[in-house]
Amino acid sequence: MFSAVPKYPPVIDGNELTQAKVELGKMLFFEPRLSSSHLISCNTCHNVGMGGHDYLPTSIGHGWQKGPRNSPTVFNAVFNAAQFWDGRAADLAEQAKGPVQAGVEMSSTPQRVVATLKSMPEYVSKFEDAFPGQNDPVTFDNMATAIEAFEATLITPDAPFDRFLRGDTAALSDHEQEGLALFMDKGCASCHSGVNLGGQNYFPFGLVTKPGAEILPEGDKGRFAVTATASDEYVFRAAPLRNIELTAPYFHSGAVWSLEEAVAVMGTAQLGAELAGDEVDAIVAFLKTLTGKVPEIKYPELPPSTDGTPRPVSMTQ
Amino acid sequence: MFSAVPKYPPVIDGNELTQAKVELGKMLFFEPRLSSSHLISCNTCHNVGMGGHDYLPTSIGHGWQKGPRNSPTVFNAVFNAAQFWDGRAADLAEQAKGPVQAGVEMSSTPQRVVATLKSMPEYVSKFEDAFPGQNDPVTFDNMATAIEAFEATLITPDAPFDRFLRGDTAALSDHEQEGLALFMDKGCASCHSGVNLGGQNYFPFGLVTKPGAEILPEGDKGRFAVTATASDEYVFRAAPLRNIELTAPYFHSGAVWSLEEAVAVMGTAQLGAELAGDEVDAIVAFLKTLTGKVPEIKYPELPPSTDGTPRPVSMTQ
Repeated sequence: MFSAVPKYPPVIDGNELTQAKVELGKMLFFEPRLSSSHLISCNTCHNVGMGGHDYLPTSIGHGWQKGPRNSPTVFNAVFNAAQFWDGRAADLAEQAKGPVQAGVEMSSTPQRVVATLKSMPEYVSKFEDAFPGQNDPVTFDNMATAIEAFEATLITPDAPFDRFLRGDTAALSDHEQEGLALFMDKGCASCHSGVNLGGQNYFPFGLVTKPGAEILPEGDKGRFAVTATASDEYVFRAAPLRNIELTAPYFHSGAVWSLEEAVAVMGTAQLGAELAGDEVDAIVAFLKTLTGKVPEIKYPELPPSTDGTPRPVSMTQ
Repeated sequence: MFSAVPKYPPVIDGNELTQAKVELGKMLFFEPRLSSSHLISCNTCHNVGMGGHDYLPTSIGHGWQKGPRNSPTVFNAVFNAAQFWDGRAADLAEQAKGPVQAGVEMSSTPQRVVATLKSMPEYVSKFEDAFPGQNDPVTFDNMATAIEAFEATLITPDAPFDRFLRGDTAALSDHEQEGLALFMDKGCASCHSGVNLGGQNYFPFGLVTKPGAEILPEGDKGRFAVTATASDEYVFRAAPLRNIELTAPYFHSGAVWSLEEAVAVMGTAQLGAELAGDEVDAIVAFLKTLTGKVPEIKYPELPPSTDGTPRPVSMTQ
């Protein structure tokens, strides 16, 4: 039902994690010049120092626009079956292309990104190293592939729960094990399973009782926008629960700041069960054993803008 | 006339650089929750991966407002006689308090900052370690002191010019040495001297010929705003030239992207000399020998927001 986070990044079909590619991907992940304002990088909303996200209900993007959904953590995202809250991107490379182009996020274009990267000789040479044998390696697709390679290294092994899964029963206290038992018995684990305890399948939010509009805004119909199938209205990917204590506020709306409250909401909305206070406490204690070891990241040195770098777009309000 | 960047951070009167304080200062430097939006950290505009600044003419701040002046590099800023383009802060600790409170930058308040930091137990314990023996160490002043301690470590030793100053004459090519000779003979060095080749004194921009309003906007009277002395109109601190090839665009207005053009403008504006093309080239070649070794920085792990953390302020436009 559950698996441990592996100690090393997984193999990705068609994207070998070479050192050159991972290093390039790291530069691109931290590169604000992928946005047309030159202000916003992947790391702005998926901050590797803050649980892989931004501690905001929904992110701030280009022109101080508010994004529509809570920014998911990049940590362990490689283990999700698909990306975004509605699973509209099959993998991290496809995902990476979204925010770069979204008008409310980085507001750039593939053409602008390629012109920007080609204007800096260091990037051209890093792309050549990362994609050897290619004629014209500085492409929007290769940008996404390199970012995926870096993000695949952003895994957090060695959580207490991982040690428990590997046989160290002392890694979880009695209270935490009680929480795990409740998590399984009450039915949480039917949706939140696998390596990430979530991220594998889609379920209606409000399976039993629909939460209020402050938690489940009516205008966002979730996966319905992807499949145009009536039964996918208000369907979302089950949230991955790894490092959940580091990823408040909760839900796609980012409306709930307390993990206790989020667990209680799940009880009524998904399970039709009013969880008792001590049950919530035990489940939360268990959930906190999902906090793993964050990867060490040396801040990358990005090349200077040149005369040929497309200028940041107007910054007036 | 010039000094090498030292290999180790300098001693700061009244602010001992203990490891606990420097580590805390690093966390605070990367902490977007010092801003009321939770989006903007010191590193946003003084990006340690991008020459210690943001490659923007002027920075983007709270609510997507445009700052009034070009963001100076944090690298080697500890060697400047005073901080900001007009020298209005005596040191880095005083400087650090400015942007946190400025409405167009991070738009927070000392009260909000202290409440934010006190809401996260990890910060309370880090402040206790960094400021031992204090009753109530989580203060706005101590925040600034810790940031100053971290920033004092952001120095870039071992530039070719430093090796040259230490006696390795082969560290500069003939062309670069020619540029150095011109830099001294033409008079650049009268303002751009010391460790940072600048940052020590104040001079009128347009000493001989006032540049156009696109480079020297009429509304920004520089140090006049600090001293209210007529002779300080359009007076600015001489720009520090360390790592100048990494800090485009140039001038307090950030109006000039090319280093060649910036040198030519300085020739006419400050020296009353139209520099020949090959003179500009030689001076630029010399200036590029001021690029030092950027410090290695491990991205800090910031504590999670808690129920008590003041919420990010409304993010609507």
